[in-house]
Amino acid sequence: MLALFTDFGADDIYVGQLKAALLRNGAAAAPIVDLCHTAPNFAVRAAAHLLAALCGRFPSGTVFLAVVDPGVGGGREPVAVRAQGRWYVGPDNGLLSVLAARAADTSTSRIVWRPQDLSATFHGRDLFAPVAAHLAAGSLPEDAIEPTSGLSVQLGAGDLAEVVYVDHYGNALTGLRATGVPRGAAIDVAGHRLRRRETFSDVVAGEPFWYENSIGLLEIAVNLGSAERTLKLGVGTAVTVV
Amino acid sequence: MLALFTDFGADDIYVGQLKAALLRNGAAAAPIVDLCHTAPNFAVRAAAHLLAALCGRFPSGTVFLAVVDPGVGGGREPVAVRAQGRWYVGPDNGLLSVLAARAADTSTSRIVWRPQDLSATFHGRDLFAPVAAHLAAGSLPEDAIEPTSGLSVQLGAGDLAEVVYVDHYGNALTGLRATGVPRGAAIDVAGHRLRRRETFSDVVAGEPFWYENSIGLLEIAVNLGSAERTLKLGVGTAVTVV
Amino acid sequence: MLALFTDFGADDIYVGQLKAALLRNGAAAAPIVDLCHTAPNFAVRAAAHLLAALCGRFPSGTVFLAVVDPGVGGGREPVAVRAQGRWYVGPDNGLLSVLAARAADTSTSRIVWRPQDLSATFHGRDLFAPVAAHLAAGSLPEDAIEPTSGLSVQLGAGDLAEVVYVDHYGNALTGLRATGVPRGAAIDVAGHRLRRRETFSDVVAGEPFWYENSIGLLEIAVNLGSAERTLKLGVGTAVTVV
Repeated sequence: MLALFTDFGADDIYVGQLKAALLRNGAAAAPIVDLCHTAPNFAVRAAAHLLAALCGRFPSGTVFLAVVDPGVGGGREPVAVRAQGRWYVGPDNGLLSVLAARAADTSTSRIVWRPQDLSATFHGRDLFAPVAAHLAAGSLPEDAIEPTSGLSVQLGAGDLAEVVYVDHYGNALTGLRATGVPRGAAIDVAGHRLRRRETFSDVVAGEPFWYENSIGLLEIAVNLGSAERTLKLGVGTAVTVV
Repeated sequence: MLALFTDFGADDIYVGQLKAALLRNGAAAAPIVDLCHTAPNFAVRAAAHLLAALCGRFPSGTVFLAVVDPGVGGGREPVAVRAQGRWYVGPDNGLLSVLAARAADTSTSRIVWRPQDLSATFHGRDLFAPVAAHLAAGSLPEDAIEPTSGLSVQLGAGDLAEVVYVDHYGNALTGLRATGVPRGAAIDVAGHRLRRRETFSDVVAGEPFWYENSIGLLEIAVNLGSAERTLKLGVGTAVTVV
Repeated sequence: MLALFTDFGADDIYVGQLKAALLRNGAAAAPIVDLCHTAPNFAVRAAAHLLAALCGRFPSGTVFLAVVDPGVGGGREPVAVRAQGRWYVGPDNGLLSVLAARAADTSTSRIVWRPQDLSATFHGRDLFAPVAAHLAAGSLPEDAIEPTSGLSVQLGAGDLAEVVYVDHYGNALTGLRATGVPRGAAIDVAGHRLRRRETFSDVVAGEPFWYENSIGLLEIAVNLGSAERTLKLGVGTAVTVV
């Protein structure tokens, strides 16, 4: 399986070009899954925590093409990371570093292959997609990547006590893994103190709460409403466990 | 064919997880079609009428995974409905009840199978997707579902004289089937009286009208403009045939 | 490969119906790529220039289903254009005319086949999709299309000195091909004079510039920001090379 994680927008002209590049490089046999194309634009740290939470349920052998790449065309290196049986292809700008730091068996390679027609601004299509497609097909030439000691940009394995994503319902996902938060704990966010509930139907309409979401993160929600609007949250809003 | 109908948002992180779950449960052979991921959030009644109109053109054998599920994790039952040769998998909260009531051959089953790792808030991924995938692949164990006398929540077979969906052009789809509306009839909506036209090019730019849309519903539109903005419509706005 | 280019919206109920129609007409073997569903609504001229730039990198044999069709149901003809080994299926309203005029080997056919159940407003699903699917599968009956001398609506092969698309980052793509613009040239747009840079990391955060984008067009951007908001641009904004 090829799983795509980008900030290219699900409703824009980039994902289609990315998939065409995957198909032209031998990916036709692997199902392609659009995991997320709405990673917050340019927000590498938030995206790194979201990706680390999302990737955990995917089977061994999955190849992730992960591109949140505001420094495209600059000095950052393209890399391929292998961790827990999965591959991750993307820029060495921190995006892959949270999941890499959390796995015990991570190995990192620099991508040394370059396409003949590399655009200055769309390495997702021109560089990362061909490498991911060939990894998925088992046809990547040995000399396309080169082992290296680790990633240059490291954000660490720890949690991030901030909102990292707001979904279209207005629920706010944080970079805190719920297993590390005591079940009885409350959180403070944007001037509100919220208690934990199990699910939406445990509270009345309009009531804000926090819960462990379906990818293991502490998430802030309002039953039948929008936490974003009700509590005035956004990516980067700080959260404190109390 | 597996057709997805949800309020998960086309540009959010849920559809990808749903598809990965379908693929892991044997759906690789069936084409997956994103029919709609913008069913109005939480608006089960409107979504039920939209789904009943959309499903009619799909071939026998299609499996619909339909999830608009504000009560997830609460007491509502998961069900599988069979009608006119198609399967529908989703919550028993009214969402499947309009199409079920309109078909002469509907049979209903409760889903009794449960996954080992059922999250409290994402039954689409954890429960409905595996069942839909196995139905599509013909590999659902017999004891996974159990015949029942019918759906618990019934919205009836009748039309709904309200706007049920506003598309990105600003056209407003209603829950009225156009075949039941006299061709010469006008409608009143939001303080405006509108006449029927066949298609957009029958009226001048900026003129509002109603027509029978491509899935058989009475739809309100403005040529080269937005009915939503021009007439100030939204999901739930009442429509009267006059 | 079947590539879809429409203004149907990536997050709406039309693309799924289109794909179901493709699948029912024999397209199952060809990968379907959503190239763009956010062509500006009704803006045929801008869309024609965007499509002409996007299609260039696709392999010979690709079938494009291109629908921006405000005159649907009126007098415009459905056509199939063949150029540089690729097929383009859509309305004869100018949309296909820029790419057609730029190719040396263009041939044009009118689509004379009609489906039994042609809706008045969704020819994408009912007429264009079946034709595109059968073209991709090599199963289009000979008498479904009929050679004609050329397109009725011609926009010419030249560039368009306007913004033709604004992406979700707020970058503004113009209808100017960058190869025709002197490297040292500046542009004037919305009261601002902008210089050329190679890529985003060449400028400081917040600085506007123009560059040759990954599909060969002159594009206006702001590093780590939105050109749309900073410069107040939109589809149709004029651009002058100085």
